[in-house]
Amino acid sequence: MAAPAGEAHGTQLLVELFVMLGGAKLLAEIFARLRQPTVVGEILAGVLIGPQVLHLVAPSETSHVLAELGVIFLLFNVGLETKPAAIFKVGKTALIVAVLGVAVPMLCGWALMMAWDHNNIEALFTGTAMVATSVGITARVLGDMGLLDSTAARIILGAAVIDDILGLLVLAAVSSAAKGDINVAEIATTAALSLAFVAAVTFLAAPALTRAAPHFRKLRAGNETFVVAIVLCFGLAYAAAYIGVAAIIGAFLAGMALAEAVEGKHDVHQQVRGATEFLVPFFLVNIGMQLDLGVFTNAQTLVLALVMTLLAVLSKLLGCGLGAWGLGLRGAMQVGVGMVPRGEVGIVVAQIGLAVGVVTEQLFGAVLFMACATTLIAPPLIRPLFAAKPAA
Amino acid sequence: MAAPAGEAHGTQLLVELFVMLGGAKLLAEIFARLRQPTVVGEILAGVLIGPQVLHLVAPSETSHVLAELGVIFLLFNVGLETKPAAIFKVGKTALIVAVLGVAVPMLCGWALMMAWDHNNIEALFTGTAMVATSVGITARVLGDMGLLDSTAARIILGAAVIDDILGLLVLAAVSSAAKGDINVAEIATTAALSLAFVAAVTFLAAPALTRAAPHFRKLRAGNETFVVAIVLCFGLAYAAAYIGVAAIIGAFLAGMALAEAVEGKHDVHQQVRGATEFLVPFFLVNIGMQLDLGVFTNAQTLVLALVMTLLAVLSKLLGCGLGAWGLGLRGAMQVGVGMVPRGEVGIVVAQIGLAVGVVTEQLFGAVLFMACATTLIAPPLIRPLFAAKPAA
Repeated sequence: MAAPAGEAHGTQLLVELFVMLGGAKLLAEIFARLRQPTVVGEILAGVLIGPQVLHLVAPSETSHVLAELGVIFLLFNVGLETKPAAIFKVGKTALIVAVLGVAVPMLCGWALMMAWDHNNIEALFTGTAMVATSVGITARVLGDMGLLDSTAARIILGAAVIDDILGLLVLAAVSSAAKGDINVAEIATTAALSLAFVAAVTFLAAPALTRAAPHFRKLRAGNETFVVAIVLCFGLAYAAAYIGVAAIIGAFLAGMALAEAVEGKHDVHQQVRGATEFLVPFFLVNIGMQLDLGVFTNAQTLVLALVMTLLAVLSKLLGCGLGAWGLGLRGAMQVGVGMVPRGEVGIVVAQIGLAVGVVTEQLFGAVLFMACATTLIAPPLIRPLFAAKPAA
Repeated sequence: MAAPAGEAHGTQLLVELFVMLGGAKLLAEIFARLRQPTVVGEILAGVLIGPQVLHLVAPSETSHVLAELGVIFLLFNVGLETKPAAIFKVGKTALIVAVLGVAVPMLCGWALMMAWDHNNIEALFTGTAMVATSVGITARVLGDMGLLDSTAARIILGAAVIDDILGLLVLAAVSSAAKGDINVAEIATTAALSLAFVAAVTFLAAPALTRAAPHFRKLRAGNETFVVAIVLCFGLAYAAAYIGVAAIIGAFLAGMALAEAVEGKHDVHQQVRGATEFLVPFFLVNIGMQLDLGVFTNAQTLVLALVMTLLAVLSKLLGCGLGAWGLGLRGAMQVGVGMVPRGEVGIVVAQIGLAVGVVTEQLFGAVLFMACATTLIAPPLIRPLFAAKPAA
């Protein structure tokens, strides 16, 4: 039952949910028929229905929460299909890919801004915004292609975890540099905490959960394994965020820790998939809604945005590709392209810079454009590179 | 990647999600071990973690949105297991149950307030707040027991749809009475629209979807049936809310319209179940968080709240039980008890009354208490009545 007064707000919520979900799925279907990546369709749905074109939905508290839930489930789902052993095997390569994939974009971003007559702090922030890969998009595209167990995919996933930690440390260093003093002890603590977190989940929680799994059925509240899984997912997502690592890294590690425990449990996988498929469109639409076409009104900003995007693509391709050189040219390209999307991570860095006052509105617009554009550019490159013959 | 400044808000969100999810599931497990209904545990988790006891989480925009999504999926899930034919068979009984289940509580609520020295408008609003059944709780308890296909369950579901439409009409009439004039044309339009909506979904959409189902696989964006299902669910939830019926009635009808189309599609059912199981705890916790123990500080309000709760239980039991008398005493009791929970619907009515200025804070507190209490009382009564021998 409802009433004009009390429920107008509820109706508004429902129409927004329907437009986001329906719009995403409509464009996904169109893109699938054009043989293009469906994720690009869903992100463009966000651009279309968002404040830039049709003004049907604006980014809101609700869309952000659903987007966050979507990317948490997305990475959790990917984690569930990734056994720790599969990552260990590619660990050394993943580490090199991550280190070079942080260093090269950082350097390129910094050099670009110094050459563009910006000051050192602005240059450092831009470099930092170009560092962290947003692995959700790549994971989604590879998952849709059924290629999450390829060597390149595993390297990308492992490198994304390390990349995130390195990005966190770079941001901590640059943020404190902006305030005038670099707090080495604090940065060392953050580094130690995040490494300890990853190690604890991978080496302690994962085997413990594999051993405990047969006992899950002793729980009596129903649907035991799924319930344990999602509570763990949100527990580790919170723990990760609390330390300062991204929540999605916690969700991915939770999934990985459970991968052996839920192996072969078809219904649990389908249940996680259901929640994921419902929530991921909000994540993709939300990226699209944040695209600001305002940069196109200022020629100088537009050029900066385009050059920054080009550098963001090339620097990851170069850095990560070099790191994965052992896989051969195609494998190196697969890894490099897989690490290109910056998504929401670059935006968060730029927002911090904006808040601290070291990043101008103009620079912020360019970073926002770069983050969205790299996310849109990657899927059409990932698909042909992986389609013919995955690095096995 | 995250940072102290930009992500503090995100961390707050994650800890609230974890506390709500983990708290609900912890108390569900405890209640299951005590052989009590798990839904009561999850609602009490909301009381515990909410503003009344531990102050860990307060009702917010986010908790309301997740609660709304939870109850939409809950009813959608129930609809998927309810074929239209099964409801038609009990249609006449469901209609009588709904009519008596609206008339008796309305009359009792009105009489109580008139006897309690309140004015006519206040008495009418209280009666209206006692009218509408919140079928989510009953559906959850019966679903957990695997009894959604019993005759009593079908009558309850059918009656809940009619009850909601009648409640809507009563509210429209009482609201316009509060403003001084009853707009008969508007009420007739609302009645015609909501009946047309239910008829269109049941008689046109359901058979059309059953025929169209084999063609869903022609869609190329992946996971076709599930995607069609959730887009339809939110489309009809919005349509229902737009007309003025509850969104959950639209979700239930969407599920029912799809019931034959997805029959035997195990994976689709598991996927819907996954989204449901993740979101329903937020619905239950949110009910608990809204319980206001403040009524206990005023002796007169407390007595009013307790009497109102007693009347709310007895009047539904009597009205709906009489309507289902053909099932025998046990069957009539099953239907009557199943219609007892008022949940969020009574609260919405009281909020409207508060907004219009015809309901006092004291009366609002009592209605809030009644809505929560009927929801907590029903499950422990439903379980033994249905456990021994369902009306088959």
